[in-house]
Parts: sequence; C-alpha cells; structure tokens
Amino acid sequence: MTISFRRTGGSDNPVGPRTGLLTTVHGEIRTPAFMPVGTLATVKTASPAEVRSTGADILLVNAYHLYLRPGHELIERLGGVHRFMGWDGPILSDSGGFQVFSLAGLRKVTEDGVHFRSHIDGSEHFYTPELAMEVQAALGVDIAMPLDQVLPGESDIQASKAAVERTLRWFERCRAAQPQLATFAIIQGGIHEELRLMHAREAAQAGAPGFSIGGLSVGESKSSMWAMTEVVTRELPLDRPRYLMGVGSPEDLVNGVARGVDMFDCVLATRLARNGTLFTDSGRANIRNARFREDPTPVDPNCDCMMCAHFSMAYVHHLFRNAELFGYRLATLHNIRYLVRLTERMREAIAAGAFEDFAADYLSRYQAVDEGVRREQKAKWVTRGKPEGRTRA
Amino acid sequence: MTISFRRTGGSDNPVGPRTGLLTTVHGEIRTPAFMPVGTLATVKTASPAEVRSTGADILLVNAYHLYLRPGHELIERLGGVHRFMGWDGPILSDSGGFQVFSLAGLRKVTEDGVHFRSHIDGSEHFYTPELAMEVQAALGVDIAMPLDQVLPGESDIQASKAAVERTLRWFERCRAAQPQLATFAIIQGGIHEELRLMHAREAAQAGAPGFSIGGLSVGESKSSMWAMTEVVTRELPLDRPRYLMGVGSPEDLVNGVARGVDMFDCVLATRLARNGTLFTDSGRANIRNARFREDPTPVDPNCDCMMCAHFSMAYVHHLFRNAELFGYRLATLHNIRYLVRLTERMREAIAAGAFEDFAADYLSRYQAVDEGVRREQKAKWVTRGKPEGRTRA
Repeated sequence: MTISFRRTGGSDNPVGPRTGLLTTVHGEIRTPAFMPVGTLATVKTASPAEVRSTGADILLVNAYHLYLRPGHELIERLGGVHRFMGWDGPILSDSGGFQVFSLAGLRKVTEDGVHFRSHIDGSEHFYTPELAMEVQAALGVDIAMPLDQVLPGESDIQASKAAVERTLRWFERCRAAQPQLATFAIIQGGIHEELRLMHAREAAQAGAPGFSIGGLSVGESKSSMWAMTEVVTRELPLDRPRYLMGVGSPEDLVNGVARGVDMFDCVLATRLARNGTLFTDSGRANIRNARFREDPTPVDPNCDCMMCAHFSMAYVHHLFRNAELFGYRLATLHNIRYLVRLTERMREAIAAGAFEDFAADYLSRYQAVDEGVRREQKAKWVTRGKPEGRTRA
Repeated sequence: MTISFRRTGGSDNPVGPRTGLLTTVHGEIRTPAFMPVGTLATVKTASPAEVRSTGADILLVNAYHLYLRPGHELIERLGGVHRFMGWDGPILSDSGGFQVFSLAGLRKVTEDGVHFRSHIDGSEHFYTPELAMEVQAALGVDIAMPLDQVLPGESDIQASKAAVERTLRWFERCRAAQPQLATFAIIQGGIHEELRLMHAREAAQAGAPGFSIGGLSVGESKSSMWAMTEVVTRELPLDRPRYLMGVGSPEDLVNGVARGVDMFDCVLATRLARNGTLFTDSGRANIRNARFREDPTPVDPNCDCMMCAHFSMAYVHHLFRNAELFGYRLATLHNIRYLVRLTERMREAIAAGAFEDFAADYLSRYQAVDEGVRREQKAKWVTRGKPEGRTRA
C-alpha cells in the first residue's frame, strides 16, 4: 500500500498553515483533516455511513486493541478491517505504543519489545515492533504507525533521550518488517526542545511517507505543547504530511494548523459527546443543562449534522436526561461534524489567504473550557500573529 | 383527529386472519402491523429515519412516561410529539394504565383515579381518566388509549369484574373528556372467559374506532392468552381494528393474526436486541455466542436490515463482546425489521389465501425460546388448523 501527498495551498513556511491532498488506495484525504477514532473498529454509536456523512475522509483504529480482540488474524481471515467494519475509505492505525506504555505495572520493556499483561484477561503478551507491524499489515490499513517508546510527560532528559534513540531504532525494525506499508515516523522527545529537534532532524533525514508528533497532550502545558510542535514542524520536509497524535479539541486544531500540522485525531470529541458536551463556535455547551430544557432551536444553527438538522435542544436534553442511547449518537455525530467542518473552514481560509484572520477571530470567540487556557492561547496567538504582521497563511 | 379502517382481505370470520388499512392524518398503517415502542419518544438507539426504513408504519409512545418527563405541556408547547421526536408518521400512545397499576405500594386507586408517587423522584400525582386523555391530546397522537384498571393476572373473578366495570365507566369519561381523539376501547377481564365476553360485548355495543385487548401476556399460559383473545375477537365488529397490547414475539404475532388481531406492540424485540438476542426464522439466536465469533455471513441472508445488509455475524459478535453501542443499534433495527417483515409475509399470505399454510410452516420451523411453549403452540395450532381442514385465511 502506498500513499502520496501533495500540498495544494498555504505557506511555504514549514511552521505555517497549508492545505494538501493525501492519496491512498481507499481514497483521498483533504488536509487539514480530523480523523474520528474507531478504536475497536467502530466509531462509538455511529454507522460507517454516518461517519462518512460528517465529511470525514479517514478514520483511525487501534492495532493494540484489535490485536487483543477480536485478533488481527481473525480480521485478516475476514478480509481485513475495511470489510470487517464496513468502511471503504482510508484507515490509519495507531500501533498501540501509547496503550502498551500506559499499562503501568503490567509491563516490562526491553530492547526487543514490551512484555505486558492484557488489561482484559491478564493474559501475557510480548509486543514487538515487528508484531505491531504484522498486526497492522493483517488489518490492511492505509497508513500505519511504528511502535514507539512513550514516556510520561514529566520524564527527565536522560530517560527521554533513551526513548528517542530506541524509537529511532524501532522505526527501522518496523520498516524492515513490513516495507510495503506506508508507515509514518513518530517523533518523541517529551518537552525537551533539544530532543525534539534531534528526533525531528534524524527522522527527516531517514525519510518517511509522513511524520507523527507523539507524546504531547499528555499533561504538559499548552504553551509547551505548541512550542514542541513548532520545533518539530520546522524541521520536517514540506512535502510530507504531519500528524499531531491524540490532539483534537477545536482550539487545538486551529493552533495546530497554524503551526503546520495536517492531521489530527482525538477521542475527546466522541467521549465528550457521550457526556452531553457539544462543541459550538462559542465553546462547549452541556446539553444536560436545565437552560436547554425547553429550547426549540438546534444547538448550532450553522451546523448540518443529523442533530442540528432535525432536532431541538429540548429533545436532545430530554434524551440525555433519560440516558437514551440515541442522544449519545446524535451528540457524537455533531461533535465529529463540528471538527470536520472546522477543518473545512480552515482549508477555505487557507485557500483564501485569510487563515490568520480566521484563527484570531475563531480563538477570540471560542470559550475554551478553562478560562486560563483560553487566555494563554489568545496571548500566544497574538504574540505569534497579528502584532508582528507576519503572514503565515 | 380521526381515523378510518378498511378491511382489504382475509376472512369474514371475526376470529380469522385479515388484512386492512388504517388511515390517520399522519399516514396509513397496513395491518397486520407491528408497532415499535418508543416509550420516551425515542425507539431506543434508532433514528426516526431508521425506524421508517424497517417498514414500520406507526410507532408507540407512552403517555405516563412523557407526562412525568419531560411533561406533556412542554411537548405541546414545542409543537407536539411528532415534531418533538422527528417522526412524521402515525403515533399511538398508551395511556399509562399498565404503568400506573404496576407501581405496587406506590399507588391508591379510587373511582376518580389513581394516586401514585413517581418512580423517578417520588413526587405525588393524581392520574385520572381525564388527565390521561389531556396528556394524549397535548402530545397530539393519532390514536389514544383510555385509562383502564389493570389487575394482576391471577386476580379472582370478583376483583376482575369490578375492574372491568370501572374500565367501562372510565372509558366513557375518557371519551367525554377528549371527544375529538380517536380513542380505542380496552377490553380487560383477566383469564375469566365470562368477563372477557361481557366486556367485549359491552365495548362493541358502546362502539369505538378500534379495540384493544389488555391484560394479557402478564404471566398467564399461552393457551389461556389465545383462548381469551379468541373470546374477545369473536365479539368485535369486523370493521374495526383490533390491537393486542404488549404482545410481540414472532410466534405471538402469527398466533395473534390467526385469531383476528390487527395490531401488536412489544418492547421484547428491542429489549432482546440490546441483550444480543436476534430473531431468525429458526428461532432466537444470541450473537454473543462463541459460535458466531468468526462467521462471515449475515445473521439472516433473507433480511434486508442495515445489519444483515452490511455486517457479518463476526463483526456484530465483536461489537457485543465489547459492549459497543453500535451493536445494540444494529440488533434493534434487525429485530424490528424482522417483525415488520413477518407482518409483510403474513399480509401476503392472507392476500394469497395461504395464511394457514404459512402459519403452520412458520411455527413448525420457529424454535420458541421455551421448548414447552413451542410444543404447546404447535399442538394448539394443529388442533385449530389443518386436521379439521378449516380455512380461516
């Protein structure tokens, strides 16, 4: 399986917003792109046709989870993950590095790989770079991730450096194991600028069909996250897609695109949805709130999702107050559609050379959940944007 | 709101299968009909468009539940229950008699009505025939049910007679309260043949746009249930629809249609679905069973529901093993479609004068969940069917 990427617009600055087209055998992905998460080969509550109706071009599955259940060999015998889950568009798989390294106390790491016990039944497994790639090859995904060594956000520089070096070695093992797969390089380094720089340069030098920025959004400050992102994107080739792993709030998408990121995924949209939290241009709204009890209007009059097109806030409030599963589904489709539409708006703004204005306007109106975070983001944007008159769009 | 009913085929025997067309301002209902249950103004997990895609012409909501939450007045202010839930087809509401009388220990019954405490928050309410009708008028349903007095299945004849007489008086109060509503008469009488006969005759004499058979499928034997059904349908006018309340397994639909029933509802299809139990022509199958783990075929190759059209048993098994909400939805749509398709098959058989053969064949192949029940049903059918050479279709 091969992929190709073509920039279609935006800045020649490696740390600037751009649009692109990523082509796979299962279809094209317009970037910037948000990828809905279907960990277990299902985007929770949604049918493949509904995911398609949100405008999403690609979705994500998790190799670690599917390795444990139902098993990658079973999925391969059934014709691969596309057929298994009924989604004929592009699929990207995470290798499960993040999941395996999150199993504190259940795992033991060596240069060969990771011994761990299943979080489901306690069974013992040995997950190696080669096995992670075998799983992804069996699934038949369009874009694979290598097994990387993920460390806690607060790791010191020695541990982080060792993890970076191991991740570089494991990437070569991954490539060698399944050379036919389109496997992105994952760049680690915690919040250590010199490590991020080193890893980005070495990864760029080694070459890859795309580059993932891992190990962020794991507890560090937003300003650290964006500083690290910039350190990395500045080093990456312009003609390869950049994927910021596990990042995906509305404000994060805007800030990421501003820094040259092309692809995002996050369970936040779907997880918040099942809790009744809905994205709107003025921030998050929780539909369980009593103020929506009798509201006859849709959550977002500009949204064309199934929920906003057909149902009042009063009805969705009623569904959530009674734990009705249809409510979880409507909210899920709305939040995914919101993020996909946000990428559409950013693509349009980039094409029009107006991304900077769009981003400044968006971030000034979007009330992030934490006021402190929002102020920090606005300040950050202002520092990098308007005042200097820099045009990165 | 008015309705009209026209028989379109079948027997002139009041205790025989027939087809019909029930017309409401929101559309037509082809009978025999299965009505999916949307207690709280949502058929659990399914969108209105999906309910429509099952072929269902009408669905059911519950006045008692909607009175308690979100409140009928709120729904009325929002334009009625059709607009509230986004279903533009016919809606029938149950009055909530069954629910109110199920609140053992929480209620006190007088001739005026029922004092009860909410099962949700303990608040006190006084539910009367007039209030039950006010609720249904506010919802704006196409077909309403009167408040009836429901007794436990094992009630003695004195208590049952008193309940029948009260139900007759309450029906007149219901009609007087909202004369514009199409309100069916509900026939009670437990498993006392003389009471069922008396109530059916008095209800037929008083007249109504349709007749409901209540108080069955509450623990009595299947043979008692069908004996009572026949006692009632024999007394009812041919030109009015008959609705067997709360009954709705596949074998029950066939046995009910054989006895002149036109309409059915039951939460069984949707409740079983969320437990992984799927209807097939050979009986119930639980998709969690390990034998489906790697089955690449659909549950029912003859079924055109979303699940059977697009997904393997292996995939649905995987969804259920992981408590994925999409699985509950697929199973729900399958079971509803199965029952609606069963009514379609029965309508075709009746039109072809072949219902008796269809029913005998169906019941001989359908393995009811309880083998004893199945044997009893088969014996009952044989007694009433083939041997005497009676043609009721």
